[in-house]
Amino acid sequence: MGVEGSSGADAVVARLRARLGERVDLSPASLEAARADRSGHSSPGAPLAVVHAESVADVQETLRIAHETGTPVVTRGAGTGLAGAAGAGPGEISLSTLRMNRILEIRPDDLLAVVEPGVLGGDLGRALAPHGLWWAPDPASREISTVGGNIATGAGGLLCAKYGVVRDAVLAIDLVLADGRLLHLGHRSVKGVTGLDLTSLVIGSEGVLGVVVGATLKLRRTVPGSPCTVAATFADVRAGAVASAAVTASGVQPAIMELMDAASLVAVHRLLGLDDPAPGTAQLTIQTDGPAAADEAGRIADVLRDAGGTVSVSHDPEEGERLLAIRRSMHPAMAALGTTLIEDVSVPRSALAAMFDEIARIERAYDLTIPTVVHAGDGNLHPNFIFDGPEVPPRIWQAADELFRAAIRLGGTLTGEHGIGTLKSRWLADELGEDQWEIQRRIARVFDPAGILNPGKVFAARGGTNA
Amino acid sequence: MGVEGSSGADAVVARLRARLGERVDLSPASLEAARADRSGHSSPGAPLAVVHAESVADVQETLRIAHETGTPVVTRGAGTGLAGAAGAGPGEISLSTLRMNRILEIRPDDLLAVVEPGVLGGDLGRALAPHGLWWAPDPASREISTVGGNIATGAGGLLCAKYGVVRDAVLAIDLVLADGRLLHLGHRSVKGVTGLDLTSLVIGSEGVLGVVVGATLKLRRTVPGSPCTVAATFADVRAGAVASAAVTASGVQPAIMELMDAASLVAVHRLLGLDDPAPGTAQLTIQTDGPAAADEAGRIADVLRDAGGTVSVSHDPEEGERLLAIRRSMHPAMAALGTTLIEDVSVPRSALAAMFDEIARIERAYDLTIPTVVHAGDGNLHPNFIFDGPEVPPRIWQAADELFRAAIRLGGTLTGEHGIGTLKSRWLADELGEDQWEIQRRIARVFDPAGILNPGKVFAARGGTNA
Repeated sequence: MGVEGSSGADAVVARLRARLGERVDLSPASLEAARADRSGHSSPGAPLAVVHAESVADVQETLRIAHETGTPVVTRGAGTGLAGAAGAGPGEISLSTLRMNRILEIRPDDLLAVVEPGVLGGDLGRALAPHGLWWAPDPASREISTVGGNIATGAGGLLCAKYGVVRDAVLAIDLVLADGRLLHLGHRSVKGVTGLDLTSLVIGSEGVLGVVVGATLKLRRTVPGSPCTVAATFADVRAGAVASAAVTASGVQPAIMELMDAASLVAVHRLLGLDDPAPGTAQLTIQTDGPAAADEAGRIADVLRDAGGTVSVSHDPEEGERLLAIRRSMHPAMAALGTTLIEDVSVPRSALAAMFDEIARIERAYDLTIPTVVHAGDGNLHPNFIFDGPEVPPRIWQAADELFRAAIRLGGTLTGEHGIGTLKSRWLADELGEDQWEIQRRIARVFDPAGILNPGKVFAARGGTNA
Repeated sequence: MGVEGSSGADAVVARLRARLGERVDLSPASLEAARADRSGHSSPGAPLAVVHAESVADVQETLRIAHETGTPVVTRGAGTGLAGAAGAGPGEISLSTLRMNRILEIRPDDLLAVVEPGVLGGDLGRALAPHGLWWAPDPASREISTVGGNIATGAGGLLCAKYGVVRDAVLAIDLVLADGRLLHLGHRSVKGVTGLDLTSLVIGSEGVLGVVVGATLKLRRTVPGSPCTVAATFADVRAGAVASAAVTASGVQPAIMELMDAASLVAVHRLLGLDDPAPGTAQLTIQTDGPAAADEAGRIADVLRDAGGTVSVSHDPEEGERLLAIRRSMHPAMAALGTTLIEDVSVPRSALAAMFDEIARIERAYDLTIPTVVHAGDGNLHPNFIFDGPEVPPRIWQAADELFRAAIRLGGTLTGEHGIGTLKSRWLADELGEDQWEIQRRIARVFDPAGILNPGKVFAARGGTNA
């Protein structure tokens, strides 16, 4: 897809420059950077141009030109996505909202903030903290990813089991359509059932419905007190999974509950220069927060001991951060081993142990090691496939295919928080079914009749294992 | 709309009876009952038939016949709606899911339940309680309304500010399309961002996208301990609204926070045979729950006293229920005064006092009394218009029109939890804007190309004050 022929491309760029001036970036470095996100996947070549929108009007102007010339547009925030959705290719416009980074309003009385899409999660958190407020979604990229990108992917994170995901934390969205029109979706009130819930529909839509140019965020009050941290090791990851289920069953709600399997733990220990754990050792790291944090940590420690864990409890926030740093070092530890395909399946919590059985089966069948970390409070697993070179080998995709099918079979889903993008579009119909796939694609066409928004993403390919 | 001519209607009924036998109900009492919901609004006449579906297959069969014959279908649960969405008229099939009332699965480990749509909220609550679980949405109709109806309207209730609305409490929906095909939307895992979020889209869609035939509900653990209740009276409702905002601003999160204005309070006192309150008196009734309930009630009492309230605190659950009974008697108290149009606007919490100023202005301009109760924790107001006779007089609609526009102007919405139905469809485009209205209508057409699902509801009429 894209604008055919260089003269057509030149004409589009000329129109963009005429209306947007220096905000149209043709530098080779920018064009190259716009091809990829953090998934490791790159588009086949550089886009026509990168437009650095600084206002809603800039986005509208870009879309109007794209609409009139039939030029595809790939919207981009900070480029931290892990599914390839933000990568722009030949003939496409890369539309960056990163410069639209103002926080327009913070309302402690209404527990809301109005922001532009390019605000980084870290900056938002620092702006809200003096008001005793926070926005709960906490993807691992939080510090460096944008609110607009979080909305476009329906981001999750570590705190979701207790504090929810992006879908639970957005009241209203301003959306520019493929033809440049601006829609205001949702409202500032907490409640509202007026017509269809298009705000929810846009969350997680990965750039195929429109460009998010503003958002009204639902905030929480800062949780009082400091967290307590419980770390426990288990003889194997299955025992750790069973223990995490026992914590959930105990009725105590941790703020964070992260499970690392043996391969993950070894890789991180080596990266951080720590002694190797005993072979097979898996680790659960749990944080409780709020007024009852210490009591809850004690109750959780009891549950973990009963489940066979070797348990330590820390009431010291710094020690807690040090323990969590092991979990947070997962991505660099994987990157040190080779190219990484980070998967993202999600299953019902009771199926965690069964999902680890499936992963063990796939490891044996494909002679692979699949280091896996889990948001155990909500059943969201990140199995990592490691390989050499830039492209995912077919054998790895076959193993991933078995992983996806196992998750769906267990009542779960292909992607808990990263999205479909380019990397999983061929499995989308397997999960949705052909009828639902077709209905979703038609809904996207209602917003974008010509299909110029993020073409080739999400609804691109249908069914089957092979690329 | 509907099947033209009695022979066409007879043929449709004959086909329904051939396939569904005694589940096709032609009794005059059933046909008459199917015309209305609890809004007081009735369709112009009786529908063709009431189909009492007992299975997903029954719903599919009904829809296939409707699809092939172009017959409109109005889905109905317990008929407790307040916007007219479930009323079926001439030429239409009334499809009841009330007999599909099985609870298929309760999973304490995954905090979910799988239910048929006709399960009553009261029955669900009693089935979950022995497991230490509950489903949080609590419309006033909870005891007698269906889960399917709660989903179709996106129901709210008293506990929403702390525990969320239906949108926050559904993981997956099975939906039968207008042509009888069955879609499985969502998944059993807590997280999931696979494709567009059609589960959220169906919540609150009022029967125009499909028939909800099953749902996977997200449960909570029963809150431990017993609630504490704080009741406070204020010299006028504006002072009560300011006090409720002060409670929100204090950072304490009540489970329930209900505000009644003077006219409401007088009407309820008279219904219950209590002494009249002092003229102008408004009342806030607040409940706290959980381990910190008593402490939170104490802090709230201090806030209310500082705000000028006369405050009483009760730690006795029975006394708490007695205090809340005053709030719960609102609807019968209104019914005792005449025919009631219960409105349902929602505004940001900080705008509550301003909304009461608007209501006072409208009362003066139209020489009306508009008794109003408020879910003050989330800014959802229920102003009541009282009149004689079955039809809403044009003057009342004009006053309601001003009410709606005021709520939208304050950043709120036409309907917080009751829906659009027939009664508010002419204001829908005013809030959404023409572009969004058209996109929403086209999305509905993706699900239902021929427009046989609940025609004349939600997207029926456009703009303007007059019916």
